[in-house]
Amino acid sequence: MIGRHKHCIALEDFSREEILEVIDLAASMKEVLQRPIKKVPSLRGKMVVNLFFEASTRTRSSFETAAKILSADALNWTSSSSSVTKGETLVDTAKNLEAMRPDVLVIRHSAGGAPRLVAEHVGCSVVSAGDGAHEHPSQGLLDCFTLREKLGTLEGKTVAIVGDVSHSRVARSDLHAFPKLGAKVRLCGPPTMMPAGVERLGATVHTDLREAVDGADAVIMLRIQHERIGDPLIPGTREYSKVWGLNAKKAADWLKPSCVILHPGPINRGVELSPEVADGPRSVILDQVQNGVAVRMAILYLLAGGAGEEARA
Amino acid sequence: MIGRHKHCIALEDFSREEILEVIDLAASMKEVLQRPIKKVPSLRGKMVVNLFFEASTRTRSSFETAAKILSADALNWTSSSSSVTKGETLVDTAKNLEAMRPDVLVIRHSAGGAPRLVAEHVGCSVVSAGDGAHEHPSQGLLDCFTLREKLGTLEGKTVAIVGDVSHSRVARSDLHAFPKLGAKVRLCGPPTMMPAGVERLGATVHTDLREAVDGADAVIMLRIQHERIGDPLIPGTREYSKVWGLNAKKAADWLKPSCVILHPGPINRGVELSPEVADGPRSVILDQVQNGVAVRMAILYLLAGGAGEEARA
Amino acid sequence: MIGRHKHCIALEDFSREEILEVIDLAASMKEVLQRPIKKVPSLRGKMVVNLFFEASTRTRSSFETAAKILSADALNWTSSSSSVTKGETLVDTAKNLEAMRPDVLVIRHSAGGAPRLVAEHVGCSVVSAGDGAHEHPSQGLLDCFTLREKLGTLEGKTVAIVGDVSHSRVARSDLHAFPKLGAKVRLCGPPTMMPAGVERLGATVHTDLREAVDGADAVIMLRIQHERIGDPLIPGTREYSKVWGLNAKKAADWLKPSCVILHPGPINRGVELSPEVADGPRSVILDQVQNGVAVRMAILYLLAGGAGEEARA
Repeated sequence: MIGRHKHCIALEDFSREEILEVIDLAASMKEVLQRPIKKVPSLRGKMVVNLFFEASTRTRSSFETAAKILSADALNWTSSSSSVTKGETLVDTAKNLEAMRPDVLVIRHSAGGAPRLVAEHVGCSVVSAGDGAHEHPSQGLLDCFTLREKLGTLEGKTVAIVGDVSHSRVARSDLHAFPKLGAKVRLCGPPTMMPAGVERLGATVHTDLREAVDGADAVIMLRIQHERIGDPLIPGTREYSKVWGLNAKKAADWLKPSCVILHPGPINRGVELSPEVADGPRSVILDQVQNGVAVRMAILYLLAGGAGEEARA
Repeated sequence: MIGRHKHCIALEDFSREEILEVIDLAASMKEVLQRPIKKVPSLRGKMVVNLFFEASTRTRSSFETAAKILSADALNWTSSSSSVTKGETLVDTAKNLEAMRPDVLVIRHSAGGAPRLVAEHVGCSVVSAGDGAHEHPSQGLLDCFTLREKLGTLEGKTVAIVGDVSHSRVARSDLHAFPKLGAKVRLCGPPTMMPAGVERLGATVHTDLREAVDGADAVIMLRIQHERIGDPLIPGTREYSKVWGLNAKKAADWLKPSCVILHPGPINRGVELSPEVADGPRSVILDQVQNGVAVRMAILYLLAGGAGEEARA
Repeated sequence: MIGRHKHCIALEDFSREEILEVIDLAASMKEVLQRPIKKVPSLRGKMVVNLFFEASTRTRSSFETAAKILSADALNWTSSSSSVTKGETLVDTAKNLEAMRPDVLVIRHSAGGAPRLVAEHVGCSVVSAGDGAHEHPSQGLLDCFTLREKLGTLEGKTVAIVGDVSHSRVARSDLHAFPKLGAKVRLCGPPTMMPAGVERLGATVHTDLREAVDGADAVIMLRIQHERIGDPLIPGTREYSKVWGLNAKKAADWLKPSCVILHPGPINRGVELSPEVADGPRSVILDQVQNGVAVRMAILYLLAGGAGEEARA
């Protein structure tokens, strides 16, 4: 359990305390990850199934690594979305998998809401590894963890999220999490990529990058989706980079000295970030990747570790 | 060893006692599978290789889960059939794999007879995970296990198998196994889908579904292969469903109250079974999936556990 | 560490002593591999990532098996080369993987030099599993191990390598390793497939197969690449087989009685080798496969076992 939750589907559902429970535990998990012998028996005899309807070697590998370090067994089940044309069939697949007695189902799906639909039909815990443009909660939690690690706290801090916010599940999870930890969120990008109604979450919308990052403690540069680049409503790569990208000069002129730069990866080098910035001292992108394993260890431990906890008690 | 057998290739070869040996052990394995900590060290240091020449995430995952719960290492080797155009090359692949010292080779192949051919050329145990339209012995065994679990015994029971029997390896394995456990088998489906010469196995052939299921203790609905639907010799999906499918009304009117319904999965909902029947109280389809893991644990244990048994002795 | 090396990228870099260190240890590893219980805890808590930009189920399975027998966790990361169009992106992928704290990155890539480029940018050990036409060091080491096992020593022995030498990373690794162990190397094949400048490595070039294998202690038949067969500069399959292939008659007439035959696999039966020769008493091809696992166990142990060694000290 994460607080009241048997599942990890959306940070919209998580309270401040539930977010802190995960990232506090992730700090301990990171110590395990950095040991020469990276193995603890916490989830021995537990089964984690990665059910990916969208290819994502990065996220799948991060969950698989997290499971193995905790001594859980990991099973990868990759489906082409084409074979899943109806919600009914998604539920069938999940119920069949559940019959094999996994403890946690990690689901990545192109349709927003798929993990929640599955969670309503199975008895085991469900973790979303990203669903459509809805949420990517483990990414949101690793962003929280990384920001707290780098800034000390999110309380009173300002975080700018730049890019195609309206189509970003990462941005959506961040937007639900950061204000609960006391941070202010500024959204910035082309007007066609800005979502409506974010004011109720305490976020402000900016169309000028300089204004958005001015005085910010952290900037999260979102990945621009190549498939959207051809869209007549949005700018081309070159214009995007010029207006919404960060290069060394803009970073030096516009960011305050302590401001850190995050990116969910993989980077389009030369588009969102110039190589100097991506590899520069402000970049905490590789910390995000490592923290991602630690955060996923914490999520899996909290959701699957119940029996172990009982055994110890 | 399963009785006299070093391999598990065809239930045609198995005696009543050999079938019972597997399903008796599977009952113990199912208890392990249902524990909070699903892990026993029985096959520690053993290697199970899944050599799949046809994609089948379900069956591969079931064997992989079974291996991992028994603490064996599992290796997945997926080949496209296109790269294997000659029996000679299949044997080459298997002999190369054998040189890596696996204890069990689990083989799925589109050609009937492939597992037996491999077994003749390698020193390790071979388990068929389905070969062409020949047999699917672990599915036959899990059907035996599920029927015994639900009906108490197969002795004196009547099981109807409905669908494209002549192309079904599941039906073929069931046909060889059920009579050995004392059950009568009725086959039913379009005349072009009925095999010849099944009378010698004690089965009867029916063209009327109502007649076939009348008084039956269990009905196994086979999956209709979409690639056969276009065949001018067989009916279309809609007609198939109308004549050979089961919906709530037919189930209520024609089946006796205690009759259970099985399906090897995945279901074509609305074709073989209406959703009400697939998810209804008679359906034991998800039990079959769980029992499949238990049966595969039993098969792997019996074939690879020899050294462990010797060590204990 | 293998001698002075933190990585295993090219046998060109390896001294005689470093090659011997690996193959001496591989002999002990082979004993582990042949036990009924094939499991030692040497690399427990270590993570081996197989990063394959070219499909190679054989080599990947060999490394994965080696890792698992040593109790390391293995993670497979398969990338299509198409998604990696720039060296910069290869480095990004590797650095992202490194952030997940693997101990060894095993890399297969179509571009020669890719593993070295990665090694320059990551902190963990890098093992090449074959890079373009450059080197395939673990194959070279398993060839050394197999030759020593079969011939007693390489000192004073003569090894003929036959086929498309100029495009063979296997031949290149062999060419760098065998002379260091005291063997003479003869290269043989169509003139368009012979590399230039091999004399400095002590190798001789032959265009006549009979002359090349005359008195040789071992013959390594390289796999002919089907994609090169259509090349107007090289002979067709039939002519290749006639001039450069070995059949039973040529083997009986031309090879000395003790001469052994190696092949890196998979064999094109009837092209490089007739089936009688491939499966005959001179063939040590399946020994190579088994020795490959033992050599890869040795490589992984030497590169990742450091912490364990420290712990024991």
